[in-house]
Amino acid sequence: MIAELISVGTELLLGNILNSNAKYLSEQCSELGLSVYFQTVVGDNPNRLEEVLKQGIQRSDVIILTGGLGPTQDDITKEIVAKVVNKKLIKDHDTEKKLNLFFEKRKVKMSHNNLKQAYVPEGSMVLDNHNGTAPGLIVKDETGKKSIILLPGPPKELIPLFEEQVKPYIKEKSHYTIVSEVIKIVGLGESLVEEKVLALIEKQTNPTIAPYAKDGEVHLRITSRTKTLKEGKALIEPTKKEIYNLLGQHIYSSDGRTLEEVVVDLLIEKNYSLSVAESCSGGLLSGRLINCSGISSVYKEGIITYSNESKIKLGVKKETIDAYGSVSEETAKEMAQAIATRAQSDVALSITGIAGPNGGTKEKPVGLVYIACHIHGKTIVEKINALGSRDKIRNFSVISAINLLRKELLKKG
Amino acid sequence: MIAELISVGTELLLGNILNSNAKYLSEQCSELGLSVYFQTVVGDNPNRLEEVLKQGIQRSDVIILTGGLGPTQDDITKEIVAKVVNKKLIKDHDTEKKLNLFFEKRKVKMSHNNLKQAYVPEGSMVLDNHNGTAPGLIVKDETGKKSIILLPGPPKELIPLFEEQVKPYIKEKSHYTIVSEVIKIVGLGESLVEEKVLALIEKQTNPTIAPYAKDGEVHLRITSRTKTLKEGKALIEPTKKEIYNLLGQHIYSSDGRTLEEVVVDLLIEKNYSLSVAESCSGGLLSGRLINCSGISSVYKEGIITYSNESKIKLGVKKETIDAYGSVSEETAKEMAQAIATRAQSDVALSITGIAGPNGGTKEKPVGLVYIACHIHGKTIVEKINALGSRDKIRNFSVISAINLLRKELLKKG
Repeated sequence: MIAELISVGTELLLGNILNSNAKYLSEQCSELGLSVYFQTVVGDNPNRLEEVLKQGIQRSDVIILTGGLGPTQDDITKEIVAKVVNKKLIKDHDTEKKLNLFFEKRKVKMSHNNLKQAYVPEGSMVLDNHNGTAPGLIVKDETGKKSIILLPGPPKELIPLFEEQVKPYIKEKSHYTIVSEVIKIVGLGESLVEEKVLALIEKQTNPTIAPYAKDGEVHLRITSRTKTLKEGKALIEPTKKEIYNLLGQHIYSSDGRTLEEVVVDLLIEKNYSLSVAESCSGGLLSGRLINCSGISSVYKEGIITYSNESKIKLGVKKETIDAYGSVSEETAKEMAQAIATRAQSDVALSITGIAGPNGGTKEKPVGLVYIACHIHGKTIVEKINALGSRDKIRNFSVISAINLLRKELLKKG
Repeated sequence: MIAELISVGTELLLGNILNSNAKYLSEQCSELGLSVYFQTVVGDNPNRLEEVLKQGIQRSDVIILTGGLGPTQDDITKEIVAKVVNKKLIKDHDTEKKLNLFFEKRKVKMSHNNLKQAYVPEGSMVLDNHNGTAPGLIVKDETGKKSIILLPGPPKELIPLFEEQVKPYIKEKSHYTIVSEVIKIVGLGESLVEEKVLALIEKQTNPTIAPYAKDGEVHLRITSRTKTLKEGKALIEPTKKEIYNLLGQHIYSSDGRTLEEVVVDLLIEKNYSLSVAESCSGGLLSGRLINCSGISSVYKEGIITYSNESKIKLGVKKETIDAYGSVSEETAKEMAQAIATRAQSDVALSITGIAGPNGGTKEKPVGLVYIACHIHGKTIVEKINALGSRDKIRNFSVISAINLLRKELLKKG
């Protein structure tokens, strides 16, 4: 089956935003066994959108449109689809109810514009949007053979809609089963991971192995294409084993969990409580851990000691900062020890570093970060040299701290 | 003049990479006064590329193709362009010389394939590539009216080529200048913003006004099209004033700054120090503020009191939590007061709420969040009802807290 993506939005044509939806959907289609031959971006213009949509229906089996489903006058995707497939727009009562509920809950008066979102082309399959007001839609063309899938533009709405409702729909239409597993790796760069598994990548055709760099981590996706799910899973198994042999503990999960979920699960399993002290990361480490379910049973307290004054108030010795500086092995160590004492936690993490863009010196350049893990009376410190923007350095520090804790938790058996 | 972008590359269709070239080129074209009506991505496939190129020549004045200029068999862009505009490929002696020099310098033998890069459609303008072996090209269609611009795919080659050689070429051909400004709004939903400025949107043709929803905020972009930059700026001014009249303090910036940057700048200006106490947001509020430059001069301390125990340790009365619960106006108020006292800061913010997915009750549903701002001995509490995922609720709480502080800082004159 051939798929085609049409992104609707003037902000894309003006270059205001990157088309991350097209990347996501292409990746997903490829995994589902659909061939994407064209991606098109078109503005909020009725004639041009109509032209592009008609062409898509002619040459592809599945057309995925994103954007232009909102409540404003500029949002025309649904209207143009209805026109092209020759269907009326009718009010969908379920969607209307949900819209009313949405605004009631927020205690906001629903504007007249918003009701526009309750209208759908006759005969559409309505996809529930749990993260916004515009529902997704699946509409058939006049022949009934082509599927036109409409999704809202914001990735936070589009991704769950696609995962939960579009994927099963496409899977049912597709002739073979695609099984894929993602092995997640931390603490090794993309080229190093690729070097280690290169022989494996080169000899494989089914399953295939593809590496992706992702915010300080590397993911290896193993994908098989078979008739049944069982065959697909069996085909993946030996490759997965070989990758585990090659990369060992650098692999933190292959079951979909994030790095922080793996660590929080380890803490829960061992019944260890956790506290956190942060300087340059300024709350991002706690913020990330606290996004995990079950965290409330282990997380005791966090503190953001961005200034030297607040580090000293926490319990770091003034002499330590005077002698070694606030960005040093010694300060990181005392931060972790001090928050463990204050919170009376089994385990403590700390981060102190220079995230830039200013504040670097020759001896202590931007990107120098110390992370410490205090566990059962012992404190381990790691020094890292991160590269890139302030944002990137802070993010890499957070990942490294979570990974340090993971390694220590695994050591304790 | 109408421009159209065609990106050639299977890696884009597989979703392996983001199309950052399309964003860059769209932004550039818009600044140069070209209207980009279509962006297309197509694979390394001769028939499909030919189809897309022919369509582009029909409907646009300038067609910018990126990718597919390399030495391999997969690289077909130049060949297809030559075919479509009915020109022979001839050897360009300057390019051949440069190729020879390039490989000599690197002491590498030039492979036969590489010579392919010295061939150009007859009559082309050859653009020197200082960062790679494939030159850029400008080719005219058969009528001589349309320009087809071919650029190499790697951004490190494409960007300098565009800046140095394509920009001057387009400027010479273009007749007007595009100026645009973004007005950023917080505390009002997209449809409400549009309702308020609808009359304005409807009556405008130059400048135009377009609303965009963005992570809990709404942005209005005003864009003018004039002969000179000065005229463009003057044309935007009255519309901008009208929008300020309509939306008032809901507008937090029109100079590119983020919400947190505006608030941190206000704190610096007033020389107010800040501390933060967070429960459900778990560090994200501090994390966001600490991403601003200059924050170190105002941020004193942050604390993450996720558990009741840690809230009480901070200074919230046990009786308050027992009587009203940890998610209540009273607890939010005491959290802000307690951190202000602990940190001895002029201003304090606090957040406590139920981010879900679990923990909600009928009286206190998921999404119920209290935010408090303590400023000069007074504490203001706002109750919000956020909807969506845990992530979305936490993010909305953070934005609301920063906005509450902004409103209070503006009040103090």
